[in-house]
Amino acid sequence: MALIVQKFGGTSVGSLERIKNVARRVAKARDAGNDVVVVVSAMAGETDRLLKLAKELSPMPDPRELDVVVSTGEQVSVALLSMALLDMGCKARSFLGFQVPMQTDEAFSKARIVRIPNGPIHQALHEGVIPVVAGFQGITKEGRITTLGRGGSDTTAVALGCAIAADVVEIYTDVDGVYTTDPNICPKAKKLAKVSYEEMLEMASLGAKVLQTRCVEFGMNYGMPIHVRSSFNDEEGTWIMKEDESMEREHVTGITCDRKEAKVTLKKVPDRPGIAAAILGPAAERAINVDMIVQNVSTEGFTDFSFTVNRSDLPCAKELIEPVARQVGAEAVETADSIAKVSIVGVGMRSHAGIAKKVFETLAKEGINIQMISTSEIKISVVIDDRYTELAVRALHDAFELDKEP
Amino acid sequence: MALIVQKFGGTSVGSLERIKNVARRVAKARDAGNDVVVVVSAMAGETDRLLKLAKELSPMPDPRELDVVVSTGEQVSVALLSMALLDMGCKARSFLGFQVPMQTDEAFSKARIVRIPNGPIHQALHEGVIPVVAGFQGITKEGRITTLGRGGSDTTAVALGCAIAADVVEIYTDVDGVYTTDPNICPKAKKLAKVSYEEMLEMASLGAKVLQTRCVEFGMNYGMPIHVRSSFNDEEGTWIMKEDESMEREHVTGITCDRKEAKVTLKKVPDRPGIAAAILGPAAERAINVDMIVQNVSTEGFTDFSFTVNRSDLPCAKELIEPVARQVGAEAVETADSIAKVSIVGVGMRSHAGIAKKVFETLAKEGINIQMISTSEIKISVVIDDRYTELAVRALHDAFELDKEP
Repeated sequence: MALIVQKFGGTSVGSLERIKNVARRVAKARDAGNDVVVVVSAMAGETDRLLKLAKELSPMPDPRELDVVVSTGEQVSVALLSMALLDMGCKARSFLGFQVPMQTDEAFSKARIVRIPNGPIHQALHEGVIPVVAGFQGITKEGRITTLGRGGSDTTAVALGCAIAADVVEIYTDVDGVYTTDPNICPKAKKLAKVSYEEMLEMASLGAKVLQTRCVEFGMNYGMPIHVRSSFNDEEGTWIMKEDESMEREHVTGITCDRKEAKVTLKKVPDRPGIAAAILGPAAERAINVDMIVQNVSTEGFTDFSFTVNRSDLPCAKELIEPVARQVGAEAVETADSIAKVSIVGVGMRSHAGIAKKVFETLAKEGINIQMISTSEIKISVVIDDRYTELAVRALHDAFELDKEP
Repeated sequence: MALIVQKFGGTSVGSLERIKNVARRVAKARDAGNDVVVVVSAMAGETDRLLKLAKELSPMPDPRELDVVVSTGEQVSVALLSMALLDMGCKARSFLGFQVPMQTDEAFSKARIVRIPNGPIHQALHEGVIPVVAGFQGITKEGRITTLGRGGSDTTAVALGCAIAADVVEIYTDVDGVYTTDPNICPKAKKLAKVSYEEMLEMASLGAKVLQTRCVEFGMNYGMPIHVRSSFNDEEGTWIMKEDESMEREHVTGITCDRKEAKVTLKKVPDRPGIAAAILGPAAERAINVDMIVQNVSTEGFTDFSFTVNRSDLPCAKELIEPVARQVGAEAVETADSIAKVSIVGVGMRSHAGIAKKVFETLAKEGINIQMISTSEIKISVVIDDRYTELAVRALHDAFELDKEP
């Protein structure tokens, strides 16, 4: 008998029929002798509908009141799932953010969980009741409703799992696990049985959309195993857990690509201390997220300075950077929005040399020019022309033999 | 400067444009120097949509979870109205049932308000913030969401007004006040400037749909003036308040009709003690609401026994009553669903004789047969064939000269 947190996303509860299916799955886990806590997202499309309504009323809606509006999506789905469980003879009850309580800070629309007293949930379990907890929402210490931002229900599930010392957090979704790369780009992509927290963090932040980084961070900090699996079948999915020996054998675990970035380059900047701060300061002030930053070695006192931003931020970034470029004496500003960032991730890189060399050789052989390079302990990212993305991913997948059994 | 509670119904906040209009009206009252607390219903149609969704999932939805679902309607509208007020530069914030807190008993879907601590609302007013309170919803002492039943937002407004000692509760609606009778039936119907609580209670329970009885009861118990007025213009509406001298002069205040009842008659029942209990007991057990009950004087040990029920309960009542009728030895059971109950209401009846006589004479002159009669201190109700309803209402309206200025 285990204590399991099961989290179901918007697609899994997207219709009344699917809600009944979820109820059956929860009841099955419970009938197998487990204690089950359920976390549910809003029905697919509901959060967008509510956001649209609010933004139609007010172009810049008050974030506190916006959270009151959008949190109703999860409120409806937890109550419907509880009804379905009750109809099946399972004792169940809904818990909203304020009832858990899921205490957060006051960063409305992107709040962070501060504390989850485990009293009310444990009490329900003790009484044989299945708690059905609203994902995505929390409550400040003054009693105002907050939401955790996109993908927040995953964070709710993992944070709750940690708070009640669950044995595992199961994330049910519309894909059946984490893959070596995006199967839509590379048909040879293979489902991974296990991924370390560190790898998953890199993959999530690099564009693999299965889990949000914050939820993986929670799991990592508390050593909570996360099992990502399909809500439409009973197959094992992918376990995200502490690095273990079997993982060490792999050089590379997965390949991700991010096609939502754009590149800004300041050509021939006089190279002197404080230049990076002068260039990136205005972007930070305007909350434009800068991802990769590359500065070449100085040639005759001049350097090229490049960085990437979210593609939607490019017009704003360009407008900000042009006066800065004149100020620091750059020769020109160039921007490119048809770029892609392709990344190789694997804890094996720590102990295996030659991975970077193999990446560069593979891309060179395909005639793909590398525009920027950035590396970390377990990751190599390259920026290339977007038109070569599929080619690069497939070539790298083959080169590292990710389709082969370990 | 006054402390005013303004309540807006579903039609008044039925679209984003109307929500902005409500915000303008609230801001105007505030700019005139008043402290304003707003109570809002769900946007028109929303509660029905949510009920339908829940009932599609579960034919008999758990009432506790159903309340969690339907209370989201008001949650959305308070947040939207708060956003609209903030956009206009008015400090405002939404208050949900649990935040006020609006403490109720545990009768889910028809909860009664038990207590409203005035701390948080007063605090908001003190800080110059307009509290925008969700109507219809409350919270049990265990922290579960309840709803107050249809028309519950009026009750929220009046109960809140009493709790914070407001000077007046304004109920904004899609009609511009309380009329002497339904203007759709009698074009001569006239808007009343003032109605006493007692009259309004009778009129509400007799089918005038402007206000729910529970909200009038609250007002009466605390002596809270209620001003019913249109949300589409600035005209004075109708004040519901303590009986005063000016009201004494009127014999009759208004005429209502209820076309939603049906009549059940047990013919020739042996007249013996306990017969009424034997007949009506089973209906009470099945929660069928019995309205008028009439038992004629006994002739040769037999009596006719009639009662009215809600028309939708008639099939069920008939099924229940037939075995009972055989048991008590009744000759036959007759039912009629094309009846109407027409009532004359007025505190003046207490001190004026001859009202009943005038009612009966007026109907007789029109050739309308009276099937049942029931009276109270300030009301006379008659049951007639539904086809004469309009005729009866108009004839009585003329007979009591309700279209004339007092």
